Amino acid sequence: MKRMDKDLAFMLRYENVAWYENGKVKILDRRIYPIEVNFVECSNHKEVAQAIADMVTQSGGPYVAAGMGMALAAYEARNKNEDDLITYLEDAAYTLSHARPTTTENMKNVTEAALKTARDALKEGKRVDEAIFEDVINNSNRKYEKISQVASYLVNNFPKNGIVMTQCFAETIVGFMVLESRNQNKDIKYICPETRPYLQGARLTASVINDMGADVTVITDNMPAYIIGKKKVDLFTSAADVITMDGYVVNKVGTFQIALAANYWGIPYFVTGAPNQGHPDVNSVTIEERDPELVLYSLDTKHTMEGVKGLYPAFDITPPHLCSGVVTDKGVFSPFDLKNYYMDAKGRHISSDDILI
Amino acid sequence: MKRMDKDLAFMLRYENVAWYENGKVKILDRRIYPIEVNFVECSNHKEVAQAIADMVTQSGGPYVAAGMGMALAAYEARNKNEDDLITYLEDAAYTLSHARPTTTENMKNVTEAALKTARDALKEGKRVDEAIFEDVINNSNRKYEKISQVASYLVNNFPKNGIVMTQCFAETIVGFMVLESRNQNKDIKYICPETRPYLQGARLTASVINDMGADVTVITDNMPAYIIGKKKVDLFTSAADVITMDGYVVNKVGTFQIALAANYWGIPYFVTGAPNQGHPDVNSVTIEERDPELVLYSLDTKHTMEGVKGLYPAFDITPPHLCSGVVTDKGVFSPFDLKNYYMDAKGRHISSDDILI
Repeated sequence: MKRMDKDLAFMLRYENVAWYENGKVKILDRRIYPIEVNFVECSNHKEVAQAIADMVTQSGGPYVAAGMGMALAAYEARNKNEDDLITYLEDAAYTLSHARPTTTENMKNVTEAALKTARDALKEGKRVDEAIFEDVINNSNRKYEKISQVASYLVNNFPKNGIVMTQCFAETIVGFMVLESRNQNKDIKYICPETRPYLQGARLTASVINDMGADVTVITDNMPAYIIGKKKVDLFTSAADVITMDGYVVNKVGTFQIALAANYWGIPYFVTGAPNQGHPDVNSVTIEERDPELVLYSLDTKHTMEGVKGLYPAFDITPPHLCSGVVTDKGVFSPFDLKNYYMDAKGRHISSDDILI
Repeated sequence: MKRMDKDLAFMLRYENVAWYENGKVKILDRRIYPIEVNFVECSNHKEVAQAIADMVTQSGGPYVAAGMGMALAAYEARNKNEDDLITYLEDAAYTLSHARPTTTENMKNVTEAALKTARDALKEGKRVDEAIFEDVINNSNRKYEKISQVASYLVNNFPKNGIVMTQCFAETIVGFMVLESRNQNKDIKYICPETRPYLQGARLTASVINDMGADVTVITDNMPAYIIGKKKVDLFTSAADVITMDGYVVNKVGTFQIALAANYWGIPYFVTGAPNQGHPDVNSVTIEERDPELVLYSLDTKHTMEGVKGLYPAFDITPPHLCSGVVTDKGVFSPFDLKNYYMDAKGRHISSDDILI
C-alpha cells in the first residue's frame, strides 16, 4: 500500500488529516488545534458523518474524511455478501455526502468514486476497505503533485530574501510554498493575519509554517495595510474558494482589503488555484453569511454587551484589477485571461481533469 | 457642587469613570468590561497610581483618575497642617503623574492644576479634597462642551438615514455622536470593527452606542472593506491620538486600512479632534510597539503554537489625501489646511486654550 512520503505526511497532520486504520477513522480536531491536539476517533461511518457535520475538520478535510469513512463502512460490512455490502456502502455514501448540505455535490464525487472502487475490488477479489483507503491516498498524492507545481510557479515570483504575507488557511499550498522556498534557496519570512473570528491564520496557517521550520509572525486583522508599508512586505498571496472565469477572487473575508493595501503600496497579490468554470462571472457568486453570534466571541467567551449585533460574511470578493496573477498548475495567468487555462496550444477548449480543492 | 447631567454621567460610566466619594476612588475596570462590570476601589492615592499603571482605565480615563487621586490624597492628609498637606500633595502628584512613563507629561497638567486648586482652597478656607474634586468635574464638563460641539459638526455630515462605521473606542465623542444624531432626528445605524487584540470596538464603542439605545453591529477587523461596499456604508469616522499639523492621522491600528477602503468605495472619512502643534509633521510621530505576545491571545487563552511570533504596532498613520475632513470644535478643516485652526479671522496665530484629549 502506497504511503505518502515523510514531508507530505507531515503536512497532512495539519490539513486533511483523517486516517483509516484498524477499523477506525481518526480525525484531527481542528476546532481547537493547536491550543489542544485532539483526535476524534470514529468507530463507524455514521460517526465520521457526524464529525464532518460538527466541523471537526474543514476545507479539504471533509473530502478525505468522507473517503476514509467509506473505507470504514466497507470494514463494517466485511462479513456481508457482495450485494448487501454494496447496498450498505450506498447507504453510507448517502449519509457521508449529506453530512453538510453545502458540500453535498462535491462530496458525492468522493463517495461515488469509493463505490466504483468497491465494485472493482469485489470483481478482483481484493479487500474492499483497503482498496478504498488506497484510492483516497492515491487521489491525495495526485492532488499534492499538482499543488506542488502551483507552489513552484508561485515561489518563482518570490524575492531571494523577503517577506511574504498570506491570508487564512491556504491548505496544502502553504506547506508546499515553504518546501519550495527552501528548495529554491530563498530566505522568506512569513506574516499571517490571524483571520478572526475562527483564527485560521493564527491557529492553522502559522502552525504549518512554524512546524516546517520557517519564520512566521502573526498579526491581527487590522494591521495588514500598515505592516505592508512599515515592514516592506514584498508580496501578498492567498488561495481562493472560487476564482471566477472573469477574474474575481472569492476567498476568506479580509483578502479584499489586503489586496487593496498591496495595490496601495505597489506590491503584487498572487492568488493560487484554478479558475472555476462553474462560475462564468462574478454575478454567479453568493457570499455565505454565517451565524453572526460567532463574531461576538473570543473563543468561548462572549465579549460584547447584550443587544450588540454581529455580522459574519465568511468570504469577500477581490476584483481582477487588484490581482497580479492567478498561479495555477499550468503557470501564471492574468485574471483577465483565464479562459486560456482551459485552452490547448492550438486554442481549442480542453476539459480539466481535476479541480484543485 | 456641580454634577454632570444625566446623559453625561451615563456616558462617564463607560469612559473616564473614576469617582472620588467617601474617602475612596472607584475606577471601572475596563480591562474586562463588559464581560464583567467591576470597579477597582482605591483607599489611597498610591492604589490609584497602581490602578493607572495596571491599565484598569485607558485613554482619557487615567487623567480623570489622577485628578480624583489628588482629591483622595488631600483627604488622606486632611488632619495635617497646611505645609505638610502641600508636601504630601506634591509627593502624591509625583506618584500619580509617574504611574505610566508615556503619559507623565500630560498627567503633570492634571496634578499641577490640582496642586494649584489645593493652595487656593487653603487660602479660602475650603475643604481641599472637595475643591479638587469639583475642579476635576468642572474640567470634564468644559471638555464635554467642546466635544459636544465637535459631535454637532460631525453629525451635520451624516445622512438623514444611513450607516456610519467607526473605529475603536473614540471616548466621549461616541456618546455625543449618538446624542447629536438623535437631536438632529437622523436615523443612523452604526458598524464597529472589533479592534483586536484589545477589542475596544467590540467591548467599549459598541457598548456605549448600544447602551444609548442606538443600533450597533460589530464586525471583525478583516471585514470593513467588504462591508462598506456590501452594506452601502455612508461614512467612516474615527477619533485620533494625534493629528499632525500636516494632516496625518495617527490612530488605533486599522484606521488606515478602513480609510483606504472608504476611499476605494467613494465614501468620506472624517476624523474628530484638533491638530496637534507638538507634531508639526508626520516625521515627529513614533509608533509605539506593544508586547507582541498580546496578539497571540484570545482574551486569556493563547491560540498560537509555540514558536510563532507576534507583532503589535498599537497605531497606524493615515495620510491626508485619504481623510475628507478634520472635524474640530471650530468646524471642519481640510487636512491640508490645519494651520487655520490656530488662526483668528484676521489670520493671526492664536493659542489653543485646551487640548481635546
